[in-house]
Amino acid sequence: MIGIFDSGVGGLSVMKELITTLPDYQITYFGDTARVPYGNKSKETVTRYALEDANFLIKKGAKLIVVACSTATALALDTLTKKLDIPVIGVAEPSIKAAIEATRNNKIGVIGTKGTIGSKIYQKLAKKINPKVKIYPQSCPLLVPLVEENWIKKPETRRILKKYLRPLKTAQVDTLILGCTHYPLLEKTIQEIAGKRITLISPGKETAKAVQKLIDNNSDLRKSLKKKKKYRFYASDTSGEFKQIGNRFLGRRIGKLAKANVENL
Amino acid sequence: MIGIFDSGVGGLSVMKELITTLPDYQITYFGDTARVPYGNKSKETVTRYALEDANFLIKKGAKLIVVACSTATALALDTLTKKLDIPVIGVAEPSIKAAIEATRNNKIGVIGTKGTIGSKIYQKLAKKINPKVKIYPQSCPLLVPLVEENWIKKPETRRILKKYLRPLKTAQVDTLILGCTHYPLLEKTIQEIAGKRITLISPGKETAKAVQKLIDNNSDLRKSLKKKKKYRFYASDTSGEFKQIGNRFLGRRIGKLAKANVENL
Repeated sequence: MIGIFDSGVGGLSVMKELITTLPDYQITYFGDTARVPYGNKSKETVTRYALEDANFLIKKGAKLIVVACSTATALALDTLTKKLDIPVIGVAEPSIKAAIEATRNNKIGVIGTKGTIGSKIYQKLAKKINPKVKIYPQSCPLLVPLVEENWIKKPETRRILKKYLRPLKTAQVDTLILGCTHYPLLEKTIQEIAGKRITLISPGKETAKAVQKLIDNNSDLRKSLKKKKKYRFYASDTSGEFKQIGNRFLGRRIGKLAKANVENL
Repeated sequence: MIGIFDSGVGGLSVMKELITTLPDYQITYFGDTARVPYGNKSKETVTRYALEDANFLIKKGAKLIVVACSTATALALDTLTKKLDIPVIGVAEPSIKAAIEATRNNKIGVIGTKGTIGSKIYQKLAKKINPKVKIYPQSCPLLVPLVEENWIKKPETRRILKKYLRPLKTAQVDTLILGCTHYPLLEKTIQEIAGKRITLISPGKETAKAVQKLIDNNSDLRKSLKKKKKYRFYASDTSGEFKQIGNRFLGRRIGKLAKANVENL
């Protein structure tokens, strides 16, 4: 089984892409809704949470962990990779690789939560892959609540987006990484404001491709994953809104949602 | 010592009023920043967190607990009162009492998080005190992130506030409870949008008065509280922003901030 976790409901936008790219595999999702969000918490706290989340999925049978949360990827992927015995894939590296392939002027913008942007993960990764690339980061802390409120088409959201994107347009980035699980839901508005010349990179799609590549290249892993169209959903807080918001992110209906307490696992 | 807790940094606006009203007492603050916010979580989760928060303060020597968080008051005060051996005061009852005293047309508006508004706590309390009073609730989930971003004077915040307050103005409420620790920081803008005829009720001020009354009427409690101007601050995640945002809420500088892990206490 492929295990995927996120701080909350947002990672379902990544799971959606996993299902599209790898329709034959069993996937289990965990959303840490009792402690959401991660974006404004410290590296220490986010790392502790991410380890608990991953260990929960491993206990459920995961042979591969996808970190759908950008903040957890930025702050905890190193520790997860070191401490876990199974492969772990985050959303940052596939995104930056795709962005570096897409850019023509080597100016790449990244939008994300405070935690993601503050970690400078994209700068660090870009430096390794192509030191000529310049990253323009912009933290957008209000976008997550706006998406969760479903204010996607409201003029207030457009105004706030314009404000956030202005410095990136001024810097003339030609590629923009949507560095948070919630942002693909704003993709249309972001593209309108950014203009047609800016290529948007969606971490979910790129991560799904990276997972496929990993599975294709690793026959042991491939054999250990159950080929079965079965999707399971767990959350640490199963209040009414998870399904309601989650259906939008997943693009299909979430079936049963089970509660999981992962604290101090 | 008086113990006061909140889901995060917001409760410092209540502590500010406690210090003003009761300047001679020792007060210890705990902010559950590792699990903030509570406003979008379930009754079960918030109750568990609130018990852990209160027990942490009791272990530190609290003889009286102030629940500064509106959501925790709404969802967990009953359980706290039942399970703890010391007095517990929440922010809802003092606010509704003050609002009922202030209203002339018996139409009271309440703004708060989804958790607070969904709990119908103000309707339940009002019904007990004066069944003639009608409560007009409005959840305002975007205000907390806007305040934390310090977008207090931005036009986007004013637009969003206007949208939230419109139904309450249409309903002709003459009194409005600012039912979340973050809202007093928007008091000026809210008053401007609401108009001079609407009386704003600030839970911090009313709760501080209720705490004073309780201490005045209970000599055993009074004796057990240390009369000492000493303020201590704990948080479950001590990232850089707590002090930065907290100083604004408290209206003075936070000294030392200690880390506390309260999970499964």
